[in-house]
Amino acid sequence: MARIANRSTRRGRTVVAQTGHRLVKGSPRPPARTSPEVAESAVARDDTEITALDLKAAALSPAMAAYFGKCDEKLGFVPNVLKAYAFDMAKLEPFVAFYNDLMLAPSGLSKLEREMIAVAVSAQNRCYYCLVAHGAAVRQLSGDPALGELMVMNHRAARLSKRHRAMLDFAVKLTAEPWLVEEPDRAALRRAGFSDRDIWDIAAVAGFFNMSNRVASATDMRPNTVYHGQAR
Amino acid sequence: MARIANRSTRRGRTVVAQTGHRLVKGSPRPPARTSPEVAESAVARDDTEITALDLKAAALSPAMAAYFGKCDEKLGFVPNVLKAYAFDMAKLEPFVAFYNDLMLAPSGLSKLEREMIAVAVSAQNRCYYCLVAHGAAVRQLSGDPALGELMVMNHRAARLSKRHRAMLDFAVKLTAEPWLVEEPDRAALRRAGFSDRDIWDIAAVAGFFNMSNRVASATDMRPNTVYHGQAR
Amino acid sequence: MARIANRSTRRGRTVVAQTGHRLVKGSPRPPARTSPEVAESAVARDDTEITALDLKAAALSPAMAAYFGKCDEKLGFVPNVLKAYAFDMAKLEPFVAFYNDLMLAPSGLSKLEREMIAVAVSAQNRCYYCLVAHGAAVRQLSGDPALGELMVMNHRAARLSKRHRAMLDFAVKLTAEPWLVEEPDRAALRRAGFSDRDIWDIAAVAGFFNMSNRVASATDMRPNTVYHGQAR
Amino acid sequence: MARIANRSTRRGRTVVAQTGHRLVKGSPRPPARTSPEVAESAVARDDTEITALDLKAAALSPAMAAYFGKCDEKLGFVPNVLKAYAFDMAKLEPFVAFYNDLMLAPSGLSKLEREMIAVAVSAQNRCYYCLVAHGAAVRQLSGDPALGELMVMNHRAARLSKRHRAMLDFAVKLTAEPWLVEEPDRAALRRAGFSDRDIWDIAAVAGFFNMSNRVASATDMRPNTVYHGQAR
Amino acid sequence: MARIANRSTRRGRTVVAQTGHRLVKGSPRPPARTSPEVAESAVARDDTEITALDLKAAALSPAMAAYFGKCDEKLGFVPNVLKAYAFDMAKLEPFVAFYNDLMLAPSGLSKLEREMIAVAVSAQNRCYYCLVAHGAAVRQLSGDPALGELMVMNHRAARLSKRHRAMLDFAVKLTAEPWLVEEPDRAALRRAGFSDRDIWDIAAVAGFFNMSNRVASATDMRPNTVYHGQAR
Amino acid sequence: MARIANRSTRRGRTVVAQTGHRLVKGSPRPPARTSPEVAESAVARDDTEITALDLKAAALSPAMAAYFGKCDEKLGFVPNVLKAYAFDMAKLEPFVAFYNDLMLAPSGLSKLEREMIAVAVSAQNRCYYCLVAHGAAVRQLSGDPALGELMVMNHRAARLSKRHRAMLDFAVKLTAEPWLVEEPDRAALRRAGFSDRDIWDIAAVAGFFNMSNRVASATDMRPNTVYHGQAR
Repeated sequence: MARIANRSTRRGRTVVAQTGHRLVKGSPRPPARTSPEVAESAVARDDTEITALDLKAAALSPAMAAYFGKCDEKLGFVPNVLKAYAFDMAKLEPFVAFYNDLMLAPSGLSKLEREMIAVAVSAQNRCYYCLVAHGAAVRQLSGDPALGELMVMNHRAARLSKRHRAMLDFAVKLTAEPWLVEEPDRAALRRAGFSDRDIWDIAAVAGFFNMSNRVASATDMRPNTVYHGQAR
Repeated sequence: MARIANRSTRRGRTVVAQTGHRLVKGSPRPPARTSPEVAESAVARDDTEITALDLKAAALSPAMAAYFGKCDEKLGFVPNVLKAYAFDMAKLEPFVAFYNDLMLAPSGLSKLEREMIAVAVSAQNRCYYCLVAHGAAVRQLSGDPALGELMVMNHRAARLSKRHRAMLDFAVKLTAEPWLVEEPDRAALRRAGFSDRDIWDIAAVAGFFNMSNRVASATDMRPNTVYHGQAR
Repeated sequence: MARIANRSTRRGRTVVAQTGHRLVKGSPRPPARTSPEVAESAVARDDTEITALDLKAAALSPAMAAYFGKCDEKLGFVPNVLKAYAFDMAKLEPFVAFYNDLMLAPSGLSKLEREMIAVAVSAQNRCYYCLVAHGAAVRQLSGDPALGELMVMNHRAARLSKRHRAMLDFAVKLTAEPWLVEEPDRAALRRAGFSDRDIWDIAAVAGFFNMSNRVASATDMRPNTVYHGQAR
Repeated sequence: MARIANRSTRRGRTVVAQTGHRLVKGSPRPPARTSPEVAESAVARDDTEITALDLKAAALSPAMAAYFGKCDEKLGFVPNVLKAYAFDMAKLEPFVAFYNDLMLAPSGLSKLEREMIAVAVSAQNRCYYCLVAHGAAVRQLSGDPALGELMVMNHRAARLSKRHRAMLDFAVKLTAEPWLVEEPDRAALRRAGFSDRDIWDIAAVAGFFNMSNRVASATDMRPNTVYHGQAR
Repeated sequence: MARIANRSTRRGRTVVAQTGHRLVKGSPRPPARTSPEVAESAVARDDTEITALDLKAAALSPAMAAYFGKCDEKLGFVPNVLKAYAFDMAKLEPFVAFYNDLMLAPSGLSKLEREMIAVAVSAQNRCYYCLVAHGAAVRQLSGDPALGELMVMNHRAARLSKRHRAMLDFAVKLTAEPWLVEEPDRAALRRAGFSDRDIWDIAAVAGFFNMSNRVASATDMRPNTVYHGQAR
Repeated sequence: MARIANRSTRRGRTVVAQTGHRLVKGSPRPPARTSPEVAESAVARDDTEITALDLKAAALSPAMAAYFGKCDEKLGFVPNVLKAYAFDMAKLEPFVAFYNDLMLAPSGLSKLEREMIAVAVSAQNRCYYCLVAHGAAVRQLSGDPALGELMVMNHRAARLSKRHRAMLDFAVKLTAEPWLVEEPDRAALRRAGFSDRDIWDIAAVAGFFNMSNRVASATDMRPNTVYHGQAR
C-alpha cells in the first residue's frame, strides 16, 4: 500500500501522495477551468489533504490492504474516510466492519433507502464530506440524479412515497431533536409498513451518520473529488 | 408565447404545456433510468407542474413576450419562476425589473459573487427552487462545479478568499438572525475590502433571496429540470 | 426636491438635511422632554441619519421627483426607506414599482391585511424600521391602535378572526421556518377562505418583508420619527 | 373595593365589573372607531376579562384594599395583574411585597433602568401583558416614547449608552440562554460600571419578568387598555 | 446567627464561614476520595463560596434568624439560596414568603408535583443550583430516586401518569416558548383533570423557577453539597 | 447464557427474564418505597423491558457469550445496551469491538475524560440511557459524585481545568452545531495541550455518543437500574 505509506504532511493536514493514474470509473476530475475570480478550485486539494489533522498513516494490515485493494478495483479509488481512519488499524478495522454491516448487510431497508437516510441526516448536520459521498450514492442507486439533490437540499420538497417520507421524517427528527422521539414516532413508522427490525435499522443508520458527520466536521474531512461528477 | 398560453391546470398546480423540442443548451433531460424502487423521477413533473397553486397564465405583455423569447434564445428555456409570476403582468414586470437590476447591473460585486450569496442564503432557508437554479449558476460562472456544491452544503467548508468568506458570513447571519446584525458586522465587510455601496448590494441580494425563498417555499415552486445537469 | 439634494453625510451615515417645516399630518415630533438620564431621545437623529451607510443621494429622476412630491403632499413626509434607496434611480424605481403593486394593487387581501402581515413578519425578524412604519399603518387602517401593538408584540395574543389568524400563522411560519411549509399549510389557508391567488399574495407580502427587514437591519435604517405618534 | 367584589365570570375568564368613570389620568380609552373590517377592537374586553382562568375574586384584605385604593388614586386604575392575583390574598400579598421591593426600592439601578430590563426581557418572551404595561412605564419615565418602542422591538437598534447596552445584553442573554451566562458576562457588567449589588439587581429584575411573562402567557392575562395611549 | 455574620469574602465570592459540625441529617459530605486526575472535588468550595458576587451578609432580622434556625433544625443546614439573598433583609423576607406560599401552601398540586415542575423547568434552563436542590426533593418526596434523575435528564423518558405528563409538558413549553402557550394548552390540562386554580399553580411554580434559574445562573449560585447524596 | 436465552416479549418491548440473584456489586436495587402518589417506580420495568421494539434475542455467539459472562463477573450485570443489540450477532459484535476500542484502548485521553465527553454530549441530546450509564461511570472513575451530576446538568457550571473545559466545549459544540466547527475550534484544543491524535479521539468519542444517544432515543432504551445508586 505504497499509496498510503507515502503519505506525508503539508501544512498540518493529512496528506496522501497521488501515485496512480486511472482513466475509468473513478478517476479524479481534470482541474476545472475556473473563472479568473476563482484562482484554484475550491476542492483542488481535497484528494491530497484529507483532514486538518496531522496523523501519520499506519502500515495497512493484510485485511485492510485487501479491502483497500478491493475498493480501488470496484470504485476506482479508496474513499477518503478510510484513509482518514488509516492512522491506526485498531480504529480502521472496527469502523469498516461496523459500516459494512450497517449499509450493506441484508435488511428490510434497501441500500438506496439507507443512503437516502445518510444524506437527509447529513443535510441536517450540513456535513460536506457525507453529503458529497452519499449524495453520489443516492444518484447512482436511484438512477435519479435529482433525488440525490433533493436529499441534500430539503427532503420535504421531494415527491416521495409515504414509506420514504415517514422514514426520512423519523431520521431527521431523530437527528435534530432526539429527546422528542417517542412512541408516536415509532407508530408512524409501523403505519408506513416498517417492522420493528426495520425501525432499528433506520435508527442505526441515522445514528451512524450523526457520528460520521461529527467526525468529519471535527477534522474537516474532504471527500474524493471524483464523487462530484458521478451519476449526474 | 403559445407555450405559456397553452398552460392548463391539472391537480390544482400551475401546469405548462410542453410544446417545443430543443436539442442544445437547456433541453430537458431525457427521463433518467430510475431504479425499480423509484417508479418515477422525483422531479418528473417539475417542468409542467410548476407551483402548487392553480393560477391561470395571463397573456404576456409585448415586453414580457420579448423577454421570454430572449430567455429561450439565450438559455434554451424560460426559468420556471418567470412562468410562476406570469399569471399577472403587473406582478411579473416589476419582478423582472427588480431582479435584473439586482443580479445583472454594474456592481462592486461580480455576478458570481451575487450568485454565491443567492445560494448560501437559499441553503440557510433550504429552498429547493433557488438552490437548484442558482447552484447551477455558481457552477457555470465559476467553472468550478464543486464550488456550487459547497454553497449548497455548507459555505464554511469551502476554501474561500477572505473577501468571499466575509461576504457569505454576513449574508448568512443576515438571513438567520437579522436582528443581531450591527455595526461590527458592517465593519468586518469594510475590513474585507467592501465599500458602503457594496454592503448595500450584499444586503440587497441576500434580502432578495430571503424573499424568493419564501415565495418558492410557499407555492412549492419547482425548478426547470435542465438545471440539474448543467455545468457538472 | 431640495430636501433630498441637500443631503450630506455626517459620521458615515446617510444624512438628509431638514429644510421644511410642517404643522399638519406628518410633522416631526417636537423634541420630547426626556428624563435627565436620557440625554437625547433614542431617535433624535433618525430623521437625518437614515442609514449607517455613506451613500450619496442621486438626482431624482422626474418620475421619482413626482413620486416624492406626492408622498410629501399626502403623508407630509417622504418615508425614509425611499430616501435610503435614492442613491441610485435604477434601484429606487423598481423598488417603488414592486412595492406599490404589492401593497396597493387590487387583491383579495385588504390593505389592512397586507399591513398586518408586514408587521407580524417584521416582529419575527425584530426589524425596527418596518415595525415602526407598518405598525403605524395597521393602527391607521384599522382604527384600532392596540391591534398595531399586538402585531408587533405577539399576534397570537390578539383576538383575531379565523381568517386573520390563519393568514398570520402562515406568514410567520413562512418567515421562521420556510422549509417546513407544505401542502397542509396551504390547505389551512384554503379552509379559512383564501383563494390560490390570495395565497400567492400572502406569500408575496410575507416574502417582501423578509427582504425589507434584512435590507433595513443590514443598513441600520431608521424610520421617520413622525410614525411613532401616529394614530395612537 | 366594590369594583373587585363585583367581579363575576363570563365565558370562563376572570371578569371584572366596570363601575367607575374617570376622566383623568388613566381613564379607559373611548372605543376606537375601528374599520368595518375589525368588528370590535382587538382589546375590547381586556379590561373586563382579565385572564383565561375562571378564578373568583377573594375579599381584599385591609392591606390590599388600601393598596388597590392607592393604585386607583395615583394611577387612576388598578393594574390587571393585581386583579389577576386577587383570587387569594396569600398569593397577592407576597407578590406585591416582592414586586415593590424589586422595582421601587433604592437600588443602583434607576426605576427607568429596571423598566427597560422588564421590557427587553418581555420582548424576548413576546409577552403581551408585560410589553404593554412596562412599555408604557418606559415611555413615561424616560419622556422618550420611542425608547419604549425600541425596548419592545429590538433593544439593539436603540442608540444606548454603554451602560444601558451592557445591562440589556446581560438581561436578554440571561433570558434566552441562562445556561451560557458565566464570569465573562459578569465582568462585562463590571466594566460598564455596575457593582456586584447592581448585578444582583439586574439578575433579579430580569428573573422576575421571566416569571411574570410566563404567568401572564399561561393565563392569557390582558393589560389595562389605558396603557396603550399613555405617554405617546 | 454567627454562622452568617461571620461571612467573609474570598476571591470576590459570597463566602460563608463554616463553624458548626453536624453528624446527622444534612452534614456536609466528607471530602470524596477523588481520582488523582481530579485534584479537588468539582464542588469542594460550594458550601463556602456560594455565589460569584461579593455581597456582605446583613444582620438577620429576628424573623429570618428564627427561620434559618428552623431550617438548621429540620434540614440540618440552611439552603444556600437563602444565604445568597441574606445580604438584604428587604429582599430575603419577601423571597421567603413568596417561596413558601408557592411550594408549601395548600394546593391542588401535591408538594411532589410542585417539585417535579421545579426540576423539569430547571432542566430546560440547565440550572445547576435548582437541579441539585430540587432533584433531591423529588427523590425524597417520591421515595423513587430514579424519578429525580428522570426529571433532570428528560421528563419524556419517564413512565408518568397522564396527569403528570400533561403537567410537565405544559411547564416545559411555558419555559421554552411561552409565546406559543394558548387555550389548547390550558384545555389539555383541564382534560388531564386540573382545575383552573391548579392551572394557576402550575404556571406560578413554572414561572417561579424560570426566575430562580436565572438568578442562580446570573450569580453562579452553588447548592449545598449535602444535597448530592440525599435519598439516593 | 440462560438469562439472555430466556428472553421473551411482553407488550411489544424487548424483555429479559430475570433469573439470577446477586448480592454484591451490581445487584438491582430493592424496590424503593415509593410515595403513594407514585404507584410504581418510574423505572420499575427498566431491567426487563429494555427497548420499545419487539426484537427476539439471538443465540449468543461463543465470543459474545464469553463477553457477557465477563461483564457479569466484573460488573455484576450485563449492560442493557448489549442486550438490546443481541438480536443479531452481526450487529452486536462490531458494536462491541468499536466501543471497546473507543472507550478502553490506549489514548491521550484518560478513561475518565472519555466518560466526561460521553455524558456532556448525552446531556446536550437529553439521552436518558447514556446519562444514567455514563453518569455512573464518571462518578466511579473520578471518585467525585458531584462531577457526574455536573456533566449531566451543565458542564459550564463545573470548576474544571482548562484542559477539561476546552475538551467539553469542543464536544458540545460538535454535538449541537457541527457545521460551525472549524480551524479555530481545533486550535483551541491544541492550545489546551491536546495533540492531533487527541483531537481525533475527542471527535470520535463525541461522535459515538451522538450515535448511541439516537439509537437509545429511537428505541426508548432503558438503563440497568443498578446504575442509579452506584458511586453516590
